[in-house]
Amino acid sequence: MNPLVINGQRLQREIDELATISEAPAPVVTRILFSEADLRGRAFVKKICSSLSLKIRSDAVGNLFARWEGFDKKLPAIATGSHIDAIPNAGRYDGVVGVLGALEAIRALQSSGFKPRRAIELIVFTAEEPTRFGIGCLGSRLLAGSLSLDKARALRDRDCKSLEHWRKRGGCNGRLNSVRLARNYYAGFVELHIEQGPLLERAKIPIGVVEKIAAPGTMHVELTGVGGHAGAMLMPDRHDAALAGAEIALAVEQAAKTTGSRDTVGTTGVFRIEPGAVNSVPCHAWLEIDLRDTQVKTRDLALRRIKKTAMQICKRRGVKLKFSVLNADAPAICDSGLVELVAGVCQELRLPVKRMISRAYHDSLFMAQVCPITMIFIPCRGGVSHRPDEYSSLRQIKNGVAVLARTLARLAG
Amino acid sequence: MNPLVINGQRLQREIDELATISEAPAPVVTRILFSEADLRGRAFVKKICSSLSLKIRSDAVGNLFARWEGFDKKLPAIATGSHIDAIPNAGRYDGVVGVLGALEAIRALQSSGFKPRRAIELIVFTAEEPTRFGIGCLGSRLLAGSLSLDKARALRDRDCKSLEHWRKRGGCNGRLNSVRLARNYYAGFVELHIEQGPLLERAKIPIGVVEKIAAPGTMHVELTGVGGHAGAMLMPDRHDAALAGAEIALAVEQAAKTTGSRDTVGTTGVFRIEPGAVNSVPCHAWLEIDLRDTQVKTRDLALRRIKKTAMQICKRRGVKLKFSVLNADAPAICDSGLVELVAGVCQELRLPVKRMISRAYHDSLFMAQVCPITMIFIPCRGGVSHRPDEYSSLRQIKNGVAVLARTLARLAG
Repeated sequence: MNPLVINGQRLQREIDELATISEAPAPVVTRILFSEADLRGRAFVKKICSSLSLKIRSDAVGNLFARWEGFDKKLPAIATGSHIDAIPNAGRYDGVVGVLGALEAIRALQSSGFKPRRAIELIVFTAEEPTRFGIGCLGSRLLAGSLSLDKARALRDRDCKSLEHWRKRGGCNGRLNSVRLARNYYAGFVELHIEQGPLLERAKIPIGVVEKIAAPGTMHVELTGVGGHAGAMLMPDRHDAALAGAEIALAVEQAAKTTGSRDTVGTTGVFRIEPGAVNSVPCHAWLEIDLRDTQVKTRDLALRRIKKTAMQICKRRGVKLKFSVLNADAPAICDSGLVELVAGVCQELRLPVKRMISRAYHDSLFMAQVCPITMIFIPCRGGVSHRPDEYSSLRQIKNGVAVLARTLARLAG
Repeated sequence: MNPLVINGQRLQREIDELATISEAPAPVVTRILFSEADLRGRAFVKKICSSLSLKIRSDAVGNLFARWEGFDKKLPAIATGSHIDAIPNAGRYDGVVGVLGALEAIRALQSSGFKPRRAIELIVFTAEEPTRFGIGCLGSRLLAGSLSLDKARALRDRDCKSLEHWRKRGGCNGRLNSVRLARNYYAGFVELHIEQGPLLERAKIPIGVVEKIAAPGTMHVELTGVGGHAGAMLMPDRHDAALAGAEIALAVEQAAKTTGSRDTVGTTGVFRIEPGAVNSVPCHAWLEIDLRDTQVKTRDLALRRIKKTAMQICKRRGVKLKFSVLNADAPAICDSGLVELVAGVCQELRLPVKRMISRAYHDSLFMAQVCPITMIFIPCRGGVSHRPDEYSSLRQIKNGVAVLARTLARLAG
């Protein structure tokens, strides 16, 4: 086997080209599940997979699998991958580095003459981002069987369009119950990703290896008050849904700040009101709340407090409350064998490595329910993500791809 | 002159037909300035004007004038009218009763053989509702010269489209500076309107005559914080624009409740955030605030308090604030001669009448700067307006039209 050569410039070109496939003008990247941009992004990735002679299949929810067959076909494959969907107004590296970087790793391994004993499979997960249905990691949740088929079928986007509608529009015709993977279908899963936090950059360390992924929770709040004319409806007569929402958003912040854990974070990322006219008292409000922690205990403490406070607010204001917990997931503990393997590869490459917690969740959170996992993190400028100015340097990305390629070679070799 | 006969059923049919011209499915009425629905609504009104042989003209901002010429052409006309634009998710009576009702009044006068000495002119004002540009009474403001041409040219909607863009799309090609009316161009202006409040219904009184119109103010708040990943950005590092917005919306409520006047009302009717994804810390928020009072003093007290509190909130949160007062208008005092004339007509018709304040503002607020004005109110069910279930009975509407027709006859006869 020849030395592994990572072609950084080609990879950068591919990242930049994929970034142009967006629902919004450059430099903004927006690719929402099964939008035109998402479908074109998938086609772009498939083209690269074909050029590497990988065997491509899609499942019934649009998860994409590209397989480099191993010579021992009885062994379960080793998997890598991430996602290419992007929230509104996002950047070009989140998820994409783990997909296009994995393809570059496979390309480098192929060029080096490496022949995998067990198959290496790239997975491009459907809808890691929760934009369309308000629930993240849709594809990997279904792969892990951690989202019931009933709940999946009941999902609706803002226009009341179902998952069934969208997946058919995305060309996924199979049955949803065929998506779930058997436990240990894969020998392991390693995801390369930008950190989305500032710790590696601050410590000037090029690689992080993830030991634990924080426990995420998502809540939807629907508020129904009484609308009316903003001039004629006197203050004592009001049941303003938006003001109940404003108080709840502030209660989310307060709850996250007071669990006793500095790791608790709470965000009201969606706040919509109707009718949304300056001279009309808001009759409806919808909030989507994201709550995370490294520990389930403090996350759930905040969740209970938010719910209780929301009930009190709505009772006081005479506003009807519908409070739904969409998901309240456990944290994932990474496989110590895989963590040490990645750390060892870094040592060989003379790349300092930091063991860390992932505060963002990833498809790895759910893959952990199916097989041993870990994640490889690279720094991103200022810790910024989910913004158009998200940035990792080519050198940082090449480091990550080099570590991933060697890790895959060890696991498949 | 034969007796005046108001054809209620024809009027109801016209009201119902105009309600079908909407950007949203029935029973919702949405007609935003120069949208397809607004333009089709204008065409519908013009058709009726033509059938009554009224002379139609439009000015450079789309105000529509339909004139029934009088036999003494030297006398200034008497004007009536209202608007047909409707906020999102509105009903079918607000504004429309004053336009189609005035046309029915003219039709009834024509059928009775009445010949006006001075002309009677119907005005359909452009954009009484502030939906597109965030400022209400756009047409009547410009007629009264109470919106500077510079400010008018600087108006932008949410898509950054200007008034120039929209008025040209609406077929208005003249110069904006030709819109302003000379003082006393009209001998008087009387507007028929639903009350948009519950007082007439509660008191079981069929007609209100307006003595004063409350003083409205509109504020736009733009907040710029720091976005980021909802999982990775810890609470102490945040500058969440939506939370600053939530606090400001609550401060608006608080300020309106504590001026000492029960007539102060404050509403945050628009609350938008970006990027608006559940897992992203909001970096931008836009609020549109409506503040009204019967007295300028308490309205301005609330305005100053809101601004001061907003500055404190944004300083504490490290969020950038742009606070603009779009308008802070004076109340209008109605002409006592016109008020007494309407009251007298009601007495002749044996209709009980209530002298009242209009808490909603209307184009009459600005017409008051040009000529003597008053308004005729009819009850609406539950005081509800700006909602699809807004409702006045045909009998209530006919009463209003009968009072308007006789008032116009007195003024023009």
